[in-house]
Amino acid sequence: MRYGRFETYENFLRELELFHGKPAPGGVVGLQMVNLAWELLPEGILMDVICETRKCLADAVQLLTPCTVGNHWLRIVDTGKFAAIFYDKVTGEGVRIALSMKKLPNWPRVEEWFFKLIPKKEQNLYAILEEISRAGADLFDCQEVVMVEKLLKLRPKEPPVICSLCGEAYPPSHGATCRGCSNKEEKLYRLKKEAVEPPQN
Amino acid sequence: MRYGRFETYENFLRELELFHGKPAPGGVVGLQMVNLAWELLPEGILMDVICETRKCLADAVQLLTPCTVGNHWLRIVDTGKFAAIFYDKVTGEGVRIALSMKKLPNWPRVEEWFFKLIPKKEQNLYAILEEISRAGADLFDCQEVVMVEKLLKLRPKEPPVICSLCGEAYPPSHGATCRGCSNKEEKLYRLKKEAVEPPQN
Repeated sequence: MRYGRFETYENFLRELELFHGKPAPGGVVGLQMVNLAWELLPEGILMDVICETRKCLADAVQLLTPCTVGNHWLRIVDTGKFAAIFYDKVTGEGVRIALSMKKLPNWPRVEEWFFKLIPKKEQNLYAILEEISRAGADLFDCQEVVMVEKLLKLRPKEPPVICSLCGEAYPPSHGATCRGCSNKEEKLYRLKKEAVEPPQN
Repeated sequence: MRYGRFETYENFLRELELFHGKPAPGGVVGLQMVNLAWELLPEGILMDVICETRKCLADAVQLLTPCTVGNHWLRIVDTGKFAAIFYDKVTGEGVRIALSMKKLPNWPRVEEWFFKLIPKKEQNLYAILEEISRAGADLFDCQEVVMVEKLLKLRPKEPPVICSLCGEAYPPSHGATCRGCSNKEEKLYRLKKEAVEPPQN
């Protein structure tokens, strides 16, 4: 069993709590999933990950592997499934690992947690975590995959340009003006007033 | 100056290197941005963040605030801009902070880095980081904003259901079958063969 850059299971669990906000069962299922990926993929590859959920699994991947949302090695494609694809960013060969609906009934505490079969306050977190550790790789279905070509392309490292409409910098590949000014982005907010002057240092 | 859950600047920098892969200038600009958000927002609110880039800023936000991609308090809306919106998840009131194109010329090392004006190997990382620390809030433009209503809705905590086509679990709000089976998701990979049997514990 490996814990990424953490020496022990307890150290990982503590960091999961600090980073994610709680020692979530999904993060610990993520630990088992990442371990299985390491076992199935060749040693020493440069790995990218696509996580199919925006839940705790994504945080476990970020803590346990070099792949984060901010370094582009982790990408979220939200199918809402408890699954992730771990692949060699050069060859595109990898493995998709998903929580197995066929195997889940063998692990009743995990099943209760995942399907919310009993109210959260009646669930025993430590019993769930213990069962996840015991289950290990037996929680998952795995499939060998080859990623589509365009996922393997290096993103262009072109310098940003300034949008002639709003005056903010944006990637030139987005078009003649930024996505906001070309109305390609959904409106997220309205302005309260023009601008706030940041406090002086 | 605050460093989230890290005691010192050096501790934050070390964690940024471990988590993000390098002590990226963008992460340190993120530190200044998060500090400015804390200064401008009322104490004690429950904060959500929208980060407008998938770059190092997103990782700084995850390390310095309780908001991560996996706990849903951080959302990435990729306008490609070095900007983030920090807001009260109850009232929707907040502040959008963006790297200021007007102020950037006052900070030549930061400008060289941001616009890639000189080759990376000729840039002096420590001079850039030092200038970011000196600049502080003077790197940014700020606007008070009110978020659109639908961003403030609590996401439903409904249990997953099993897709009748692929047999995997998915959120029932996605429809009668999962997004994969209803062809709502772009194809990411092709299968190499049917399934891999995980190694036995």
